Amino acid sequence: MSPSDKALYRGGDGLKALFCPQRVALVGASRRPGKIGSLLWSNLSEARTSGEIFAVNPAGGEWTGRRVFASVTEIPDGVELAVLAVPAPSVLPLAEESLRAGARALIVVSSGFAESDEEGARRERELAALCHDAGALLLGPNSLGCIDTGSGLHAAVARQRPSPGGLGVISQSGAFCTVVLDWAQARGVGISRLASLGNQAGLCDSDLLLSLGQDERTQVIVAYLENLSSGDEFLKVAESVAARKPVVLLKAGTTRAGAQAFTRHRGGMLSRELAYVAAFRRAGLIQAETFEQLFDTALSLLRQPLPAGDRVAIVTNAGGPGIMAADSIERAGLQVASLSEATIAELARALPRATRLKNPVDVRGDAGAGEYLRAVEVADADAGVDAVLLLLTPQALTQPTETAAALAGWRKPHKPLLVCFMGGALLEEARHVLDAGGVAHFCAPERAVAALRNLCSYAAWRRRPPRVVTRFRVNRRRAERIIARHQRSGQTTIGELKAKELLRAYEFSVPEGYLVQTVEEALEMAERLSYPLAMKVISPDILHKSDVGGVRLGLSSPEDVRDAFDLIALRLARQAPNARLEGIFLEKMVHGGREVILGMNRDPQLGPLLMFGLGGIFVEVMQDVAFHLAPITAEEAAQMLRQTRSFDLLRGADRRQEIDMDAIAVGLQRISQLVTDFPQIQSLEIDPFLVGAPGTEPMVVDAQVLLRAPEGA
Amino acid sequence: MSPSDKALYRGGDGLKALFCPQRVALVGASRRPGKIGSLLWSNLSEARTSGEIFAVNPAGGEWTGRRVFASVTEIPDGVELAVLAVPAPSVLPLAEESLRAGARALIVVSSGFAESDEEGARRERELAALCHDAGALLLGPNSLGCIDTGSGLHAAVARQRPSPGGLGVISQSGAFCTVVLDWAQARGVGISRLASLGNQAGLCDSDLLLSLGQDERTQVIVAYLENLSSGDEFLKVAESVAARKPVVLLKAGTTRAGAQAFTRHRGGMLSRELAYVAAFRRAGLIQAETFEQLFDTALSLLRQPLPAGDRVAIVTNAGGPGIMAADSIERAGLQVASLSEATIAELARALPRATRLKNPVDVRGDAGAGEYLRAVEVADADAGVDAVLLLLTPQALTQPTETAAALAGWRKPHKPLLVCFMGGALLEEARHVLDAGGVAHFCAPERAVAALRNLCSYAAWRRRPPRVVTRFRVNRRRAERIIARHQRSGQTTIGELKAKELLRAYEFSVPEGYLVQTVEEALEMAERLSYPLAMKVISPDILHKSDVGGVRLGLSSPEDVRDAFDLIALRLARQAPNARLEGIFLEKMVHGGREVILGMNRDPQLGPLLMFGLGGIFVEVMQDVAFHLAPITAEEAAQMLRQTRSFDLLRGADRRQEIDMDAIAVGLQRISQLVTDFPQIQSLEIDPFLVGAPGTEPMVVDAQVLLRAPEGA
Repeated sequence: MSPSDKALYRGGDGLKALFCPQRVALVGASRRPGKIGSLLWSNLSEARTSGEIFAVNPAGGEWTGRRVFASVTEIPDGVELAVLAVPAPSVLPLAEESLRAGARALIVVSSGFAESDEEGARRERELAALCHDAGALLLGPNSLGCIDTGSGLHAAVARQRPSPGGLGVISQSGAFCTVVLDWAQARGVGISRLASLGNQAGLCDSDLLLSLGQDERTQVIVAYLENLSSGDEFLKVAESVAARKPVVLLKAGTTRAGAQAFTRHRGGMLSRELAYVAAFRRAGLIQAETFEQLFDTALSLLRQPLPAGDRVAIVTNAGGPGIMAADSIERAGLQVASLSEATIAELARALPRATRLKNPVDVRGDAGAGEYLRAVEVADADAGVDAVLLLLTPQALTQPTETAAALAGWRKPHKPLLVCFMGGALLEEARHVLDAGGVAHFCAPERAVAALRNLCSYAAWRRRPPRVVTRFRVNRRRAERIIARHQRSGQTTIGELKAKELLRAYEFSVPEGYLVQTVEEALEMAERLSYPLAMKVISPDILHKSDVGGVRLGLSSPEDVRDAFDLIALRLARQAPNARLEGIFLEKMVHGGREVILGMNRDPQLGPLLMFGLGGIFVEVMQDVAFHLAPITAEEAAQMLRQTRSFDLLRGADRRQEIDMDAIAVGLQRISQLVTDFPQIQSLEIDPFLVGAPGTEPMVVDAQVLLRAPEGA
Repeated sequence: MSPSDKALYRGGDGLKALFCPQRVALVGASRRPGKIGSLLWSNLSEARTSGEIFAVNPAGGEWTGRRVFASVTEIPDGVELAVLAVPAPSVLPLAEESLRAGARALIVVSSGFAESDEEGARRERELAALCHDAGALLLGPNSLGCIDTGSGLHAAVARQRPSPGGLGVISQSGAFCTVVLDWAQARGVGISRLASLGNQAGLCDSDLLLSLGQDERTQVIVAYLENLSSGDEFLKVAESVAARKPVVLLKAGTTRAGAQAFTRHRGGMLSRELAYVAAFRRAGLIQAETFEQLFDTALSLLRQPLPAGDRVAIVTNAGGPGIMAADSIERAGLQVASLSEATIAELARALPRATRLKNPVDVRGDAGAGEYLRAVEVADADAGVDAVLLLLTPQALTQPTETAAALAGWRKPHKPLLVCFMGGALLEEARHVLDAGGVAHFCAPERAVAALRNLCSYAAWRRRPPRVVTRFRVNRRRAERIIARHQRSGQTTIGELKAKELLRAYEFSVPEGYLVQTVEEALEMAERLSYPLAMKVISPDILHKSDVGGVRLGLSSPEDVRDAFDLIALRLARQAPNARLEGIFLEKMVHGGREVILGMNRDPQLGPLLMFGLGGIFVEVMQDVAFHLAPITAEEAAQMLRQTRSFDLLRGADRRQEIDMDAIAVGLQRISQLVTDFPQIQSLEIDPFLVGAPGTEPMVVDAQVLLRAPEGA
């Protein structure tokens, strides 16, 4: 299905035939327990729905007073949705019949399609074409089905029957759907809509995400994805949905990207998965690292408002857990709030027996429900507090259930309250009370903190200023000429010399230098440039100059220049006898400052991904790099720098040299502009980019640009 | 209490009077609900105990047919243990009475002692002296009490009544005791002994740890500590206990050490908390980072054998969670096992419908209990598998409870089985079955993996080879002379020149150089050394030579030497006019290789802590350092290197230079020997230690040694 076709289904109730159908046929209905057709039949027929449900089974007959149709075509007045639960080989003819019976949407739960073999893949293509031609929606094949508690549709192969609520679910894994349904039931979380994507032959991740985004009953969306059907499309939809409601995403694969995506070869560094992480962040998606974090975050979002900031007050009835929670707040990058003097005075009045009135506030082991509630109220009212974390240990005189009831009954104004009752047996009832009262609660403080951190990041994204991308004045025409010349001659690599020219056109500074052909010319230019100098061979056939002995550094006298020239010539004659030589580049050596790397790699789906990192080992071994999609704003470029652990270093932890952070951020923005202006650029790397003290001009010491291979190459 | 006094309580049943008393008096018994004296009374009197329990309350009288004694001294035949739950001011006289009544042990739950104020601290000292003089044990004050399910003693202020079992608990936080008890009750975990340490005026952490180590019913110990009463004593006890049974420790404070212990000032780098982490690791303690991890690990240790290695097989009924579990196994440093061909063939026979036969093994969404069990059995039997991780999602045809029962009933031989049932409502019964059957189970795969990682580390510690510390042939007498000379002259700092001499005595190589007094001498020596050279001022009054312009590097000609000499003289005259000069040190400059730092800082309790890290920014900014207590073995030194993230780098990720890892490990061992030989050395730092290609001699480029301040200084 092409994007333009998909547009048909966009708009308020584009997926109405799927989620809110009036007339539903289950093709392959069964009454044999343990059969999928039987489970689906009871789910469909027993869920309260406004529409009508029809059983279709070739045997025909009657079940508990209801007619069973031998064929979907026999149903009077036809159907709107057909759910197909039949063996794969029967799917195509029965899908055709269903469409003839008027179906505007098909759910195919059968497996045996593209996930199985080539025969299945062919079958799947035919199924998709069939639905496409008929203008009907297709969910699946190999889908668990879908649920809409608003319309009362339960067309999913799952034993759980969710209650209505605000959580929307999209999953590429059917098993994950059952995990969410089961968790939600245990925690008293209601579901709005759920969709198992299956093989996505028709409707895909972004279609469902858009639909849940538009569904008014859906307040929070959780999504489990293994790969994206179309990255840029998904991101566009995701950003628009995230602007209205939170989307928590667990994407298999991205979690290990940090550890695995780095290879010694530079090209691999900018991997697809890292591109996704960066893209998701910009789109405002909340990325969960584990199943637990996905659930914890969704629960917090459903039950609590977004925080206005990241300052957390802790209310506890035990010192040790309070201290450990404070540690974990700091480690998560949030702040342990400083309570105001007024708050402390108010706490002293309200809690005469409290052990500690500063944050973490210790209400004392024997504090009752009333004391807990007062402490939360007072902490919540402090203008310097953005969220409250409550800890309870089940000590002798603690009142867990009463405290839970007090918290559940409390109507707090605008700030999140995250609750952590630590223990087991004595807290079971209290936990039910908290769940029933819509309080976000957890078993361990570090989990509450991880969820809160996700809330804070999302809230900060919602508050982000409008993106304004700076346009620098550059010599675009000169850049265009360099690129065009390379393309005309079929060169996809722009070597150091021309890459530096290209960057100069975008106002980067490069060291002074000359291309020379003879030793005499070299000596003459050396006098002009003054020492120390570097000498590099220039050849379209030599990518890694050092590997063939084509680079000499630190030349400090005419003798050095003469020796270097002769040595390069000698080495080249031996190691690259057939290389076409353009000459020898004699360049002024730049000293001092910090070496960083700026780079870009263009992802086929996501577009240009910018990279920043410190020099060689920091990038290759410490893996301390940051990514962002272009075009980038000044603030985003500054954020990229801060994302690296080396940030402290750059800011001058190493007292001996302070370096110009702004200059790096400007460099990233200039690259952003260059690669946005020229989609022909596939990748670009400035390594090293030498940055000096604030106010000095950073230098491109070496650079390389790769152009996209011409079409059809 | 001095260590020699403590020895009194060592031995098989040293704490018998505390944990297994025949006659127990509760001083401050009460019948008013909500009173501590009432809760303690019902705990003591209702727990099955072999001994007798007496209520003491000044009002006297009779409760449900039992006589209440107005004073403990009135109890015929006296008591063995007295539990004091009275206001702080009454504790001393009542403790005295109890001792007179024959008590061999006292538990003081009252607060209002050293944790409150100076008056309380004085009271606490008197209480401790009283017990000490009477030769009686003291637990507390400010303790929650203790429990021994073997003798049936429940003398703790807690509402939970634990069932008997293998878990021993020691805690500095009373609240933590209640959390463990509550969690244990919910999970069906039995307790052997529990002790709340309180203020540790008498019995301390190591006393209780030793006792639980000797208690045969205790299989696994969990300990929550905020600080240690005596580090070296605790570590000695811990190592001896860990050799027999696992000890899981959550120490507040150490968790944040990584982030906070580093300051720009080198001295702060080697902090106390990091010393503990290193010491705990060597002693075989299992360190938990969070409450959840503490519980998860304890549960796994109680219910599963230790693994013989770290190769994990995954059995799952869903692909996505299986892949994510594999990721998390790799991130935890464990291995995803490679199943043998025989195993795969056997799986194919046993599970004809399985979706995937390689690891992770996917038994398919509709697998029943029998299929799950077969898969686990086959994976478990593979010689290349050390542990099995089972994942279950509650899909339509899944049989959670039956699967749980099958796993609970399975008698597996020697390998751990960790189980993760993901979901909620449909799994509740299954989870009870797993708990009742003693299966280690978790809600999320990453938590099972974290627990398994702890089991693997502990098992590896148990398997560790005997420690053999290499003794190098050194010139100990020469080192002794250098140290003695500094001590005699009252100098605590051994500057670069003498520090290098000291290190040469322990067979470190240092660059060739001479101390000169005049420019002429410098020029003469320069010719002997050959260029390039370094020049440094030597003065006992100048610690940071660079800061006063006292260092010149890269001298490459006689002119350079002359200029450098004059410049140093000029700068010193300005910046340190009063410094005593010993001369100017002219030294051959060493090039090439990698700069690393080797260091030692002597902890007053734990002894010499060795440090290794890469040069400046790696240590100061990236915080990539490793620690180990001296004396160190060759294997431990090699481990230290591997512990740093920079290890890959050192091993030659940076292809341009391979460096001699062994030489660094030998350097660490030589420092270990030096600082073990000379307890006078407070700290030592070689920065940089220049390490070249394998086979080359590493060089001490700069070094400094601090001696302990003389006694009474």
